[in-house]
Amino acid sequence: MTKIAVLGYGTVGSGVAEVLTRNAKLINNKAKEEIEIKYILDLRDFPGDPNEKKVVHDFDIILKDPEVRIVVEVMGGLHPAYDFTKAALEAGKSVCTSNKELVAEHGPELISIAHANNVNYLFEASCGGGIPIIRPLNSSLTADDVDEITGILNGTTNYILTEMTQKGLKYEDVLKDAQERGYAERNPEADVEGYDAVRKLAILSSLAYARTADYKKIYTEGITKITPDDIDYAKALGMEIKLLATSRKTIVDGVKHCYALVSPFLIGQDTPLYSVNGVYNAILVHGNMLGYAMFYGAGAGSLPTASAVVSDVVDEVRHLGRTLVFNWNPAQLDIASIENDKRRFFVRVSADKADTVKAEFGEVKKVELANLKNEFGFVTEQLSEKEFNEKAEKVGIISRIRIKDMAE
Amino acid sequence: MTKIAVLGYGTVGSGVAEVLTRNAKLINNKAKEEIEIKYILDLRDFPGDPNEKKVVHDFDIILKDPEVRIVVEVMGGLHPAYDFTKAALEAGKSVCTSNKELVAEHGPELISIAHANNVNYLFEASCGGGIPIIRPLNSSLTADDVDEITGILNGTTNYILTEMTQKGLKYEDVLKDAQERGYAERNPEADVEGYDAVRKLAILSSLAYARTADYKKIYTEGITKITPDDIDYAKALGMEIKLLATSRKTIVDGVKHCYALVSPFLIGQDTPLYSVNGVYNAILVHGNMLGYAMFYGAGAGSLPTASAVVSDVVDEVRHLGRTLVFNWNPAQLDIASIENDKRRFFVRVSADKADTVKAEFGEVKKVELANLKNEFGFVTEQLSEKEFNEKAEKVGIISRIRIKDMAE
Repeated sequence: MTKIAVLGYGTVGSGVAEVLTRNAKLINNKAKEEIEIKYILDLRDFPGDPNEKKVVHDFDIILKDPEVRIVVEVMGGLHPAYDFTKAALEAGKSVCTSNKELVAEHGPELISIAHANNVNYLFEASCGGGIPIIRPLNSSLTADDVDEITGILNGTTNYILTEMTQKGLKYEDVLKDAQERGYAERNPEADVEGYDAVRKLAILSSLAYARTADYKKIYTEGITKITPDDIDYAKALGMEIKLLATSRKTIVDGVKHCYALVSPFLIGQDTPLYSVNGVYNAILVHGNMLGYAMFYGAGAGSLPTASAVVSDVVDEVRHLGRTLVFNWNPAQLDIASIENDKRRFFVRVSADKADTVKAEFGEVKKVELANLKNEFGFVTEQLSEKEFNEKAEKVGIISRIRIKDMAE
Repeated sequence: MTKIAVLGYGTVGSGVAEVLTRNAKLINNKAKEEIEIKYILDLRDFPGDPNEKKVVHDFDIILKDPEVRIVVEVMGGLHPAYDFTKAALEAGKSVCTSNKELVAEHGPELISIAHANNVNYLFEASCGGGIPIIRPLNSSLTADDVDEITGILNGTTNYILTEMTQKGLKYEDVLKDAQERGYAERNPEADVEGYDAVRKLAILSSLAYARTADYKKIYTEGITKITPDDIDYAKALGMEIKLLATSRKTIVDGVKHCYALVSPFLIGQDTPLYSVNGVYNAILVHGNMLGYAMFYGAGAGSLPTASAVVSDVVDEVRHLGRTLVFNWNPAQLDIASIENDKRRFFVRVSADKADTVKAEFGEVKKVELANLKNEFGFVTEQLSEKEFNEKAEKVGIISRIRIKDMAE
């Protein structure tokens, strides 16, 4: 029998309790050990809830109970999550979490505290909700030099873009509807501005490249400026607009760098990310031996996220007294400015710019929409961000969307 | 330093040597141990090959060398692969393999011999080539009751169907071309008749449902009868034809069963399998908490397959002296006859059958192709295979293709 404590009885915490109850028999079988929630920490009480009597309000009760071997931190936020996690690890308890903020901010420190205390700190649910991605990066893709991660890592923005694409709706209207359905927060900034996705990208990049990626150094652009006209252009190109979080290792002047950014991108049907719609997430990983592999699934939701959290609990039960190898080095990943990062761009300009477009971008193929007489769009050659910005400023463009091409 | 031996220096075996050489530094880092190939077993000699001096022709040299801790069996076939594997495990050496035939036939026995000798028998590369799927099923989806596995598990047939779809070519012509490019064997039966896919399905189902699935009990239908007209009908329906290997747990009259089959299916754009094209493979897994997750990647090829094999080597190095938990019970999985399995069917009938179609299948929506004046197609309601076959016989149909709908 292994006793655990759950910190936070919200969406994910109550999901963890439900998963452990509904699948108790098979989970205990796979863990080769009975798993029981002894405490649930929350500020609130839950009268009538089946776990009512397990609720405590004081973390010290959990910390000081030697019977508790595993702590599930699903509170979110940096404090007190950080303090509780650190204290639990130092007390010789393994911790698992869905808290991407905490992992992105303090991941390597907490892993190293865990290992110093011969316990584990796992965070499968911090990226991509229920999708198994952290464990595969750690224990499956071990023969590969992973050189690219490209993901649809935020369900809210993917839902909004899918609705805009499939129903021809405006960003504001879909957002309002998503808020009413509970797919978007009342303050949607973290999702729509890419702040959620960039933390997940930093975590995945840190594991893939074995250096710590600082999410604050990653260029981040949200989806708030995408319009129905942009969507129509995308359709005319046979492409889709997705908020991608992407990073790749590269060598500039003999020095290893990483280009990383979160931004809306146009993608074609040659990538399996093309058909990832609605609240689904997917992570495309490129290895130098494996080529592309993709992991797809529910990127959020109480039960899928809880499923990932509980898989960490099972792993921690299987490894009590042993530490799992983690390929996350505290040394900083060198995230280069994207100004030298090259790609194609889709550009919209007013109809009278044809000559300057030709002068700056050369001969281009116009993309025209029947309902937009006063403008046209075109796709550039591969250009660095810097080159593109200079040309775009000279021309005076309406807008641009980056294009993500698949590596060969 | 951990010394290993590679049995078989063909496509996969030479890939294993290449992966271990090219990614040596990072693999050794992840394994926390230097890995070195000491022997390569092959009947042939390889003069001029960098590993020339490691080649031996007698398995006993490997078996009797206590320095060899891990044996990589990439010979294929049942014998002598079975005998060598068993002997190696009994000698206290871990074994990993890409040999789906052997795993489908003797998996549980070999796992249990491994565990009795405190070593491991791993087979990540046996299903889906480089795609991480065995390890995720074992160590990531541990919180879920997995109730469905549906995969595109054979790259050759997927390539053929993709070419037929995208270029309007005939089966025979694409096959010939695939043979010339090395994507299909000279004797293509194992691929095109579904024999390869059914073994992989049996392995994945055994792990997912924790009972041994006997591939010989699984209904298997290949792609040889698919015609360009079928492809045109699929397009008219907005669907694609894929060779799917699918199994699901169900309860019939209070008894747990498993329905499993390999067959061409029509699938719609609501499943992420829809856009899995060419030689790529993908495995869709449904868990009762997680919902759908999909694993996508290169289903074959020397380096991707070798990448999966080497990831097993790394896992075995990390777990020397400890056995990994495997959820594969030797008890037989109850594979029910598909006659009561329900689904929709797409049916082609000659134009003069409209009345009997109506009598047997009710009011149907005709699907007509401009170049096929003498026939029409239609989609049935959900019917059991048995019900469908009875009705189809009464009508006298031209052909039928099963339809795979996504569970809600």
